[in-house]
Amino acid sequence: MSYEENIRKVVPYVAGEQPKDKTIIKLNTNENPYPPSPAVQRAMKELSENKEFPDTRLYPDMDAAPLVDALAKKYGRNTDEIYVGVGSDDVLSMCFLTFFNSDKPVLFPDITYSFYDVWADLYRIPYKKVPLDDDLSIRKEDYLGENAKANGGVIFPNPNAPTGILMPVSDIEEIIAANSGSIVIIDEAYIDFGGESVMPLIDKYDNLIVVQTFSKSRAMAGMRIGFAVSNAKLIKYLRDVKFSFNSYTMNLPSIVCGAEAVKDDEYFREITGRIIKTRDNFEKELRRLGFSFRDSGSNFVFCTHPRMSGKEIFTKLRDRNIYVRWWDRDRIRGYLRITIGTDEQMENVVKALEEIL
Amino acid sequence: MSYEENIRKVVPYVAGEQPKDKTIIKLNTNENPYPPSPAVQRAMKELSENKEFPDTRLYPDMDAAPLVDALAKKYGRNTDEIYVGVGSDDVLSMCFLTFFNSDKPVLFPDITYSFYDVWADLYRIPYKKVPLDDDLSIRKEDYLGENAKANGGVIFPNPNAPTGILMPVSDIEEIIAANSGSIVIIDEAYIDFGGESVMPLIDKYDNLIVVQTFSKSRAMAGMRIGFAVSNAKLIKYLRDVKFSFNSYTMNLPSIVCGAEAVKDDEYFREITGRIIKTRDNFEKELRRLGFSFRDSGSNFVFCTHPRMSGKEIFTKLRDRNIYVRWWDRDRIRGYLRITIGTDEQMENVVKALEEIL
Repeated sequence: MSYEENIRKVVPYVAGEQPKDKTIIKLNTNENPYPPSPAVQRAMKELSENKEFPDTRLYPDMDAAPLVDALAKKYGRNTDEIYVGVGSDDVLSMCFLTFFNSDKPVLFPDITYSFYDVWADLYRIPYKKVPLDDDLSIRKEDYLGENAKANGGVIFPNPNAPTGILMPVSDIEEIIAANSGSIVIIDEAYIDFGGESVMPLIDKYDNLIVVQTFSKSRAMAGMRIGFAVSNAKLIKYLRDVKFSFNSYTMNLPSIVCGAEAVKDDEYFREITGRIIKTRDNFEKELRRLGFSFRDSGSNFVFCTHPRMSGKEIFTKLRDRNIYVRWWDRDRIRGYLRITIGTDEQMENVVKALEEIL
Repeated sequence: MSYEENIRKVVPYVAGEQPKDKTIIKLNTNENPYPPSPAVQRAMKELSENKEFPDTRLYPDMDAAPLVDALAKKYGRNTDEIYVGVGSDDVLSMCFLTFFNSDKPVLFPDITYSFYDVWADLYRIPYKKVPLDDDLSIRKEDYLGENAKANGGVIFPNPNAPTGILMPVSDIEEIIAANSGSIVIIDEAYIDFGGESVMPLIDKYDNLIVVQTFSKSRAMAGMRIGFAVSNAKLIKYLRDVKFSFNSYTMNLPSIVCGAEAVKDDEYFREITGRIIKTRDNFEKELRRLGFSFRDSGSNFVFCTHPRMSGKEIFTKLRDRNIYVRWWDRDRIRGYLRITIGTDEQMENVVKALEEIL
């Protein structure tokens, strides 16, 4: 007998490339082009300088209280309605493990964050991919009526990724209301770039979980911080699973720096506002160049060109040291996902596209 | 229909208390009484000062290469034989999910790290607790012969926790050899306090995984770093599961500071040596006070007194602002687990025990 049969064998998620070369214009993983709040750097400096530093010898606060407190204050929630994790991937992974423990299929779009089916496979959760409409939008009807009765949970991002299309809060509310027998997770990784969060609906529906991240709008992908907001009962179940997995997930720097980032709301609004403005300008240029795309509610644009394949544009941008994301996958093979960088970076992209087309 | 049935409900692991009051002599969670290497603090300071800091806006190196490289060099392994995680709990949790995917029970001692059955319950892995001998040692015979044929995996700490008893490498080798059809995980959280690691046996047996942590001997519990060492094939399976869970688990400070800690071998040997010396002195004092215990191979002593219950000593120490660990659990109810602190802290414990007894 071999131990091979006891090994869980899976096909992992493949994240976008992380090239080391700093001269590359890196628009492939939806990172923020601006640094995090100066308060974050200050917090890290204080951590390293003051006599408290030896506290890294101690286990961190297992409730990550300074971070949870700051989030509770910012979003007007109680601390027992907030859960923090090692990036929103960690939060979503724990949510799959905790809430999608069903024999019935979990529903999510066919074109969406490609980690969802990886988590479902990892935990052996049945799932059903619901095709997007021809214009790449999520059809709310597909999550209502009979479909709402026959699922083990619902998850989708708003705005959806990689399409960037925002769904109106009223449509999402219909889905949440129709699926009262399931947990509905709204993955708001990109909501801070002009979208409206469904977070207030937590007070109205007991089956809603909202997940957000510090990796995009707060420019802290390198610190690994994400969070979920829901009612205290569901957060308690999530915490129980988390504390059955690893008592201490958030390290001292992430707790301290994360809290400072949340407190600096002015900086947060400044950089997200700047990215939205750059995106709107970039969309105008893309239109001028003949690209088609739906209006983006995120920090990226998902676009296609009638005269050149996605792969060819992707490759030619890459030859010019500009990295964007392209997937060799049905329905979206013609598209590129381009992260919004600084104005200067986007001007370079436009120049490159002018040459290429 | 309610969503309640879709929720995974578990009883989480309960970690030792983390009191905020700095005047408490905290000997309850086996933390290191000394700060981490000065190189760690220096690395954190540089991270916060230099122009690279804005790199926290970018995703961290998903292979945590600087940290893995430093570990590979220190232990004379290839980088593909090393896996890093958010503390050894994260590493062990992923190992349970990856390698104990069996209908046959996983074997571990009845008195051991109490997270093992929590992980097994979380992932619904069958398990069998193997009773320790009357003197609280692991009987190697219980993991050989017929028992070795009928299990889905084997895991135990060496030295065992909370007993602190070290098992000779030759005994562990017999267990590994007898269980060639299962994965054997040796949890070496406390091996750096005088024990001999079984890591070299990785070259001889293809079913061995060795797990260690930065939380004890490297004084970095607050940074959340643990690692596994095994053959490249098993590490690949573990990485596949990890990358199906969360692409980026190690944040920038943990990668950078962890690497620096590993490089400073001199400091590491100094503080572990100091703790061993303090432990040996403390054991002499305990003997003088009438305690019985097995020689510890760790940074704690697991001791019992013939004249007073564990609970009473625990409570009376607590009244004196000294926190140790006591479990209200069969077989070990009479025992206390006392972490080794500084010489001064242990002198205070001895004085308190003299008053109490």
